[in-house]
Amino acid sequence: MPAPDLEALRRAVHGPILTDPEVVAALGRDGSHLAGHPWAAVRPQDADDVERLVRWARATRTPLVARGGGTSLDGESTAFAGSVVVDFSGWNRVLEVRADELWARVEPGVVNWDLQTALRPTGRFFPPNPGSWRSSTVGGNAATNASGPRSFRYGPTRAWVREVRAVVGTGATVRLGSKAAKRSVGPDLLGLYVGSEGTLGLTTEVTVRLAPLPPVRRGLVVGVPAGASLGGLAARLAGRAETGLSAVEYLDAPSAAVLAERRGELGPAPGPILLLEVEAEDDADADLRRRRVESLLRAAGVPGAPVEFPNADELWRLRGESSVVLDEQFGQRIREDVAVPLGRVDAFLTELRRITADERVPLYLFGHLGEGSLHPNLVVDPSSPVAARLREAILRAALAHDGTISGEHGIGRLKSGMLAQELGAEGIRLLRSVKSAFDPDGILNPGKVLPNPAT
Amino acid sequence: MPAPDLEALRRAVHGPILTDPEVVAALGRDGSHLAGHPWAAVRPQDADDVERLVRWARATRTPLVARGGGTSLDGESTAFAGSVVVDFSGWNRVLEVRADELWARVEPGVVNWDLQTALRPTGRFFPPNPGSWRSSTVGGNAATNASGPRSFRYGPTRAWVREVRAVVGTGATVRLGSKAAKRSVGPDLLGLYVGSEGTLGLTTEVTVRLAPLPPVRRGLVVGVPAGASLGGLAARLAGRAETGLSAVEYLDAPSAAVLAERRGELGPAPGPILLLEVEAEDDADADLRRRRVESLLRAAGVPGAPVEFPNADELWRLRGESSVVLDEQFGQRIREDVAVPLGRVDAFLTELRRITADERVPLYLFGHLGEGSLHPNLVVDPSSPVAARLREAILRAALAHDGTISGEHGIGRLKSGMLAQELGAEGIRLLRSVKSAFDPDGILNPGKVLPNPAT
Repeated sequence: MPAPDLEALRRAVHGPILTDPEVVAALGRDGSHLAGHPWAAVRPQDADDVERLVRWARATRTPLVARGGGTSLDGESTAFAGSVVVDFSGWNRVLEVRADELWARVEPGVVNWDLQTALRPTGRFFPPNPGSWRSSTVGGNAATNASGPRSFRYGPTRAWVREVRAVVGTGATVRLGSKAAKRSVGPDLLGLYVGSEGTLGLTTEVTVRLAPLPPVRRGLVVGVPAGASLGGLAARLAGRAETGLSAVEYLDAPSAAVLAERRGELGPAPGPILLLEVEAEDDADADLRRRRVESLLRAAGVPGAPVEFPNADELWRLRGESSVVLDEQFGQRIREDVAVPLGRVDAFLTELRRITADERVPLYLFGHLGEGSLHPNLVVDPSSPVAARLREAILRAALAHDGTISGEHGIGRLKSGMLAQELGAEGIRLLRSVKSAFDPDGILNPGKVLPNPAT
Repeated sequence: MPAPDLEALRRAVHGPILTDPEVVAALGRDGSHLAGHPWAAVRPQDADDVERLVRWARATRTPLVARGGGTSLDGESTAFAGSVVVDFSGWNRVLEVRADELWARVEPGVVNWDLQTALRPTGRFFPPNPGSWRSSTVGGNAATNASGPRSFRYGPTRAWVREVRAVVGTGATVRLGSKAAKRSVGPDLLGLYVGSEGTLGLTTEVTVRLAPLPPVRRGLVVGVPAGASLGGLAARLAGRAETGLSAVEYLDAPSAAVLAERRGELGPAPGPILLLEVEAEDDADADLRRRRVESLLRAAGVPGAPVEFPNADELWRLRGESSVVLDEQFGQRIREDVAVPLGRVDAFLTELRRITADERVPLYLFGHLGEGSLHPNLVVDPSSPVAARLREAILRAALAHDGTISGEHGIGRLKSGMLAQELGAEGIRLLRSVKSAFDPDGILNPGKVLPNPAT
């Protein structure tokens, strides 16, 4: 790694360059426990400036780490020693909203929630709502394919990105995708790019697809009896058309207890709970759909009457708190993210409980149960050897149950060592070749997704 | 190109090898006007046989062209001189249906319609329904991302493929994707692969995602007054939540007239028509949704009362006939496939009419209007110079209106020369590198999607 040459960087780019050690260290950290030590951060002035920055980085072999809201949990935006953070948080303008055509063109740094707010008067919304949506950016959501609860009805973020402009590792700008709603033009570079975690390019513009805002959204909270099959429950709720269900969230008893203790009664008696969102055309429609959902719940062994939140936003505030209260109570911990097919949820959870019990580590589980997307939270120092063992055991268990090592957070640094277990040797070879095509000198977020060849 | 060595091929693979010139020529053609002249066709016995075949092809530099139903329209599965067709049409078993988990695992050669039939008793269905669905295969649908009318509600085929097993050009088998419903593991090789038109691998198994079958599906046919804004109409219908609309199809007046003349009255008076499908929970729900749709139609300047088809299958039979009657009446013709954003539909259609009028070529237009996906059919010898001029003019017009050169058919051979206009030079460079990663010797469907470097 060459010695940082700040003057050369200043000559190369027009935007502000930050070097204050505290500021830079803060910009080098994300939501993981990893510490970043970049030597500078750049706030590019415009897309041309991003191209200049990449050309400079290529010439000097300097790693560039894109940063939006800095909320990633596995080191996706941790900036290691010798790297430069590319801070897009100031690129926060909504450039164009075409409500009638169901798309909006935005800068990558616009916060998801701010986009939702800007869209509200238009009767449209952007379906992805990751837990971090009040601080994570649309560019970051696209970079990680982070989706959140509403993917139950609307699918992943990948389905809601129509076009991206990005500067790839050669310094050239590419336009991936199109503003047309339907497109089949050979291997899909846009589909490849969404979720690539800053390893294939620096996103300078995103055109997202929008959905019509349902006139009514209600939240339902219901207690789940001990012993109910969670996989069976998820399958029942996912298997019926026209329920209007847009989210099927689960909190286990310990998570629900911490939430109730710190934020007051949730409604149902203590124990595990489901948080549901029903979308509808009007109140009568919502009542009808609620009855359909209740009959599915009864058939799945959940007989209690749901407590209703007439304003579903209140439900999402509560859901967001499920992680915050664990932060307050325990501080740093393992925040895992796996997904398994619905038929394997119960068996996976049995194995998960065995794994955590063996290490005597408290487990707080919540997640997007309707899609088998689960977030085991383990109260243990995430940098400890036991944490490394637990993490590997959980990921192996997910794979053994036909699942994936990441449902929605991504691979980042923390899971890169396990990626070959999921993709196989040939998959890793393909991914390395794809990476080389986009980033021949390996300057874009190196050491993320793919492990460094040396390690 | 080395001289074909049939004996070496016989030693290499276990499955039957066909060499009868007529049989082989038929297997070398698809739905385009291009003539294929492969020297043999292979019916691989199993996935191991596919690996053996690829290793042999790699050693002998023999092009391999995967074939399912042979319905592609732009030369996606045309097999040129010196190539070997890999015929998957006999790989037609549904291997596993997990109705509760909403997925099914199939061999690539299962016909879309046969899968739908097998699924019906389970209360599930596979949403993609391309016009060819009675003869095209699930493997072919995935290879081209061909979707059809129901993508209006359900999205493209890409959204309904969960996992693929494929033999890439190195002869190695890869598993792309997972059976989990949610997954974010870096650059998405599965998303890249779906739509790659046999240029990245030979698909040996597909796991598709299923949707719950709506209890009621009704077809509606309504006349569109001359002068109505089609783009505005599409935007109205797409812009309202909870209509249950699963398809918004359009036939212009000439197409509707040919259909009515050859198949009998359609209901509405002569003129352009919309074919709509409404999905609902029950008849009351369907009535309610129909009224919502009618109010949207009126607001968009379509005041007529729709004619109802209580069985929507009848509507799809009719829609399928829109192409068949043109075949009967005119034989070969240009069957174009472009898509533009909804706000550009009207301007694009004006330009399309000007282009065809300038060349005095009759235009028959139909398409998936709700997504701006349009199929201009032009009655002209598709191998003539005027056809080449028209095709290029139409694709350029689609691009000029922020659209794409293929909404759902793919690039194949016929559009490969225009791909750079859509992707740009850097996009083409990336695609070539991706192709080399999957297929280092260029044996998989060469000359498709990417033009041969020499041409």
